[in-house]
Parts: sequence; structure tokens; C-alpha cells
Amino acid sequence: MKVSELGEFGLIDLLAKMAYSAQDKQKASWQQLIMGIGDDAAAWYGDTSIQLATVDSFTQDTHFSLGMASWNELGWKALAANLSDIAAMGGVPRYALVSLAVPGHTEVDDVTALYKGMIELAQQFGVAIIGGDTSSAPMVAINITILGSTRGQAQHILTRSAAKPGDKVAVTGELGAAAAGVRMLNRKLQFSPEATACFKKAFLHPYPRIAEGQLLVEQGVKTAIDISDGLISDLSHICKASQVSARIEIDRVPIQPEVKANFGDRALELALSGGEDYELLFTGGTEVIDKVKKAASCPVTVIGEIVADKIGKITLVDRKGKPFNLGKTGWEHFATR
Amino acid sequence: MKVSELGEFGLIDLLAKMAYSAQDKQKASWQQLIMGIGDDAAAWYGDTSIQLATVDSFTQDTHFSLGMASWNELGWKALAANLSDIAAMGGVPRYALVSLAVPGHTEVDDVTALYKGMIELAQQFGVAIIGGDTSSAPMVAINITILGSTRGQAQHILTRSAAKPGDKVAVTGELGAAAAGVRMLNRKLQFSPEATACFKKAFLHPYPRIAEGQLLVEQGVKTAIDISDGLISDLSHICKASQVSARIEIDRVPIQPEVKANFGDRALELALSGGEDYELLFTGGTEVIDKVKKAASCPVTVIGEIVADKIGKITLVDRKGKPFNLGKTGWEHFATR
Repeated sequence: MKVSELGEFGLIDLLAKMAYSAQDKQKASWQQLIMGIGDDAAAWYGDTSIQLATVDSFTQDTHFSLGMASWNELGWKALAANLSDIAAMGGVPRYALVSLAVPGHTEVDDVTALYKGMIELAQQFGVAIIGGDTSSAPMVAINITILGSTRGQAQHILTRSAAKPGDKVAVTGELGAAAAGVRMLNRKLQFSPEATACFKKAFLHPYPRIAEGQLLVEQGVKTAIDISDGLISDLSHICKASQVSARIEIDRVPIQPEVKANFGDRALELALSGGEDYELLFTGGTEVIDKVKKAASCPVTVIGEIVADKIGKITLVDRKGKPFNLGKTGWEHFATR
Repeated sequence: MKVSELGEFGLIDLLAKMAYSAQDKQKASWQQLIMGIGDDAAAWYGDTSIQLATVDSFTQDTHFSLGMASWNELGWKALAANLSDIAAMGGVPRYALVSLAVPGHTEVDDVTALYKGMIELAQQFGVAIIGGDTSSAPMVAINITILGSTRGQAQHILTRSAAKPGDKVAVTGELGAAAAGVRMLNRKLQFSPEATACFKKAFLHPYPRIAEGQLLVEQGVKTAIDISDGLISDLSHICKASQVSARIEIDRVPIQPEVKANFGDRALELALSGGEDYELLFTGGTEVIDKVKKAASCPVTVIGEIVADKIGKITLVDRKGKPFNLGKTGWEHFATR
């Protein structure tokens, strides 16, 4: 069987099982492990806090094309996507290791611009870039590892696997603008200067919800994921990990206003399956969600609830409660489209 | 300027300076940092031990070609190269994150074979594979991050920057067989079954010197590097970081016997500049080195000494003390050859 037939998530499941079946409970590494492959980041018990680690690759022509973004923007975006995984665990990012492969004919100034973009974002969160690897390759590939921990001595993280029927499903911020940015740049679409700036910023200059992730932990939320593949796809990750299903009321989905104004009927699709918004999608009881709403400095919107139905199933309903059908549900590597 | 003109090590220096100049001493990450970019691994103070992290990329047609090794061997080798960086810090490897990019037409069985190769080696050192990333790319690229720590509560690591004039330069094991393996496979050279097996094993199935790295720490060694680029190149990394120079007596270099028997005049070059032997190159006073020799279960050979001369300069001398000239000195990415 080819990898493209198995699909990204099938492959991850397979490799996770292999890694897990190799576990040796005599060894300290395994004894201290809380969370291996299958969540936004790996987690294990440190001496006083939980330690977190996550890695993401960012490859030319798979994740980005060089014409669509400046090198500075590429650096920012690559690091932002990684930091977002630490946000989705409710953690504090601390260190970054950057593995960089570029063709030999790349301008040094472009590489330093990429690095500057990363450093600008890293500085905002006190993240130190402490290592990496540099090699030649036919195309640009950026691999970033982020190491983090829970804040202070918190022994609590956000996972994908703690959602329970009855939980409300909520999301930070507004959705769809990053996907609008991809579409705009790919198809050279023309919008007003305001909309253009908004879409470009959402796609190329996302700001990871680090503070909000920590706030979720403080307010008692147990379940979260960051929206990288798309709301429906990422919610189905939560549902599969938690062995539940979910119902989303499409009218409650906070579509970014410029997306709504400029994409008409397609706006909902961009918000539900566009991906790369790097907002936090989380679940919790009504009381907990209310506390989060009060404490958060960004919009927090309840968009549905966790139900006990077929595991991993996401049902969309309109304002009358009628099922609503949407074709594409999110990004998956190796998928043939 | 192009990256190929600046060279790998020039680029690393430049990026290291950028990362370092962005430091913020108010932030815990920076306060706890012992070693950022520029050694075999990054190091920082944990609560009870020093924490270590290193990342290496392994890209098709840059670091390997698919015809030269089985997928299982690729997995082993990629992880071994990474673990060797932890060995060179004198640490204990604990966790691995594996970022894997493969074309969609790759067989799932090949990916699982790659993973099996990694797991086989990981199990030997109690390393848990706890995370990663999977994506599609036009070629195979493996990025591995290893997290480790010093053993027990040891507050001491091996760095590149602690060599002093008067130190002896020593090396574990024997050199040249991995480079012989590359040459054999690239040029389809024919050797005896024993030599063939030896070269292949050295190149594709190296065994990282984890135990030996820890032993160096215990015996009081302060300076080490693993031989990945080649003995001369890696020794010059030590010399530059320590602001010293070194003299190597070529007759004392422990050339692997099959290499000596099969490569004649070229054997020395393979041992001095071939790379990928993953032996430990270290320096220390005579007493310390003698203690290491007694305690180690592998050969330990003194091959020269650290001297105060032009920073980074490596002088080769023959048995009469006469300077000896060798053309190629080691592997560098982006170098035009």
C-alpha cells in the first residue's frame, strides 16, 4: 500500500502504535511519559512541572511556495505554527531548535531574513533559539522543535482526549481569514486594501494563542487543540481521541467579518475547513466556558457541543437544527485532491 | 552572497550570532541556558540535572541515496547520528521526536521498516519516540530531535570549548570504515565478504558511543565532539571553540584494519577526513586520559596534543615530526567540490 492510500492520519496512527508497542516500562523515559504521539505536543513529568515538546516541518511547495511570502514571513509563520502546538497544550514555550535545509544558490540575506522573522516572534514569548542543523537540499525545508513546560508548577495540560458528552465546544477568535489569505494569494484575487491586509496577516503572520492556552488551564479546561487542519478536521481529532462525537451549529461559527463580506456562500467553508487559523478549539462544562469568556481578552464563542454518537463524527446543523452538509472537511497530507 | 559561498559553518556562525544577539536576560529560558548553537547539543539547567537537545536532518540525495541502504538501515543510521550528539555531550538520551517527509507514492512498508530501524536502536538506550510530524514532500527527509540529560544529578557536560594547550587529543575506537563503506557503495567496489560486511556495518549501522560519553564525564574529561564530519574537521571545531590549535601524529591514528588492508595509501585520508565514524574525539590531561583508557571497554588512542598556535589550525606530522599534507579535510554542506 502507498502512503497516499493510507493517508497522513492513518500513517500517524500506525507509527504511533509502533512507537508505543516498543515501550519499556523499566526505563525512566517511559515511566515519566504522559503523552506520546497523537496530541499537539508530547508531555512528560519533569521534576517540578510537566515538560512539552513538539516538532513541525514546513517544506517548500508542500506547506508554502516561495513566491507567496517573504522570507521574513516564512520564518514567522513556521515558528508560529509550532508555538501554537504548545498553546494547545496550555504550556509556556521555552526553547526552539531550527533545522534548515536550503539549496546552495539561496541568498544568505534570504536565510537571515527567515531567521529574523523567527527571532521577532521568539522574542515576544521569551523563546531562545538554542540549536539546529543546516544542510543543503534541492528545496527549502524548515523543521522546528519547540520545548516548553507548564507554567510554574502546574501539573495539568490540555489534551485532545478529555472531552465528555455534554461539554460545550468553544473557539477563540474568528475563523476563515487564513484560508482566505491562501486563496487570495494562490488565485491572485483582488480585495479592498483592508481585506487584503487582513487575509495576508491571518495567513502569514498568525499570532499563537499562548496566553489563552495558559488561561484555559487556569480556568479548568481539560481539552483543547489548535486549529491547523481546519475546525471540522481538528474537532474530529478531539472526538476520536476522546471517543465521542460533536454537533456544531453553523450559525454560531465566528466567521471573520472580512471573510463573510468577501466570500459569500464560501465563507462558512473557509471558516470550517480552511485551516491555519491557529485559534484554540476547546471543550468544557458551561461554567468553565463562562469563566474562560470572562477572563479572556479575545472573543470566545460556543459553537456546539460534545455528544455521544459514532466516534469521531461531526454533525453540522443549521439554526433550525437541520443537518447541513459540507464537502471538504480539512487538510490532510498525502490526500489526493 | 549565496549560501554556497558562505559555506555551512559560516552560515551556522552567522545564525548563531543572530540568535544570541536576540537574547533577553530577563527571561528564564536565557537565564538557564548553558550552551546554545555551536556545540553537539544545546544544554540548559533543569531542576536536578542538565537538559540536552539536538536535532539533525537526513535528506535524500544530500545525506543518503535510497539505493545505498535499506529503509531499516536508514532509520537506524538517522537515529544513531543524532544519539551520537548526545554521546558527545556525555549525556543520557531520553526522548526522540521524528519528523518524516516522504513522497505520497512511498510504500507504507518502507516507512514502517524505517521506523523499525529507529525503534531497534532506540530500545537499546531506553529512548522513547514520543512525537513527530508526517508530511508529503518530493523526497525523503528525516529530521530527528533528541532530548536528553546528564546522568543522575551530574552538573557537568562535555563541550567543544574547554580544550587547553598541553591536553592530549584522544579518540575512541577505529577510524575510516564508514567512509570506506560510502566509497564501496558509491563506486560499487568489491572486497572480501569480511571487509564488505565491516564497511557496510560501519556506514549503515553505527553504534553511538553513549556509554563512553558518560564515562568521559565521570573520569573528568571536559572537551569532546563526535566524529561526524571527519577527524580533522571535527578537531578544528574543538580548536576554534577553544581558541587553540592541535597537532596530530598521523602514525598514531587508529585506522580500522580492513581499511588499512584494502585502501592502501588512501586509508589515512579515509580515517582523517572520511567522517561518519561517530567515534568520540576528546582532549584532557595525561592522567585523565589514562583513567579513561583503563575504564573504557573500547580502544582509546592518544593521537596528538592541543597546542597554542593559530586558532583552529590542525597540523599533521609524521613519525619524524615532519609536517604532512592532506588535501581534503572533511565534509561541509554547500561546499563546491
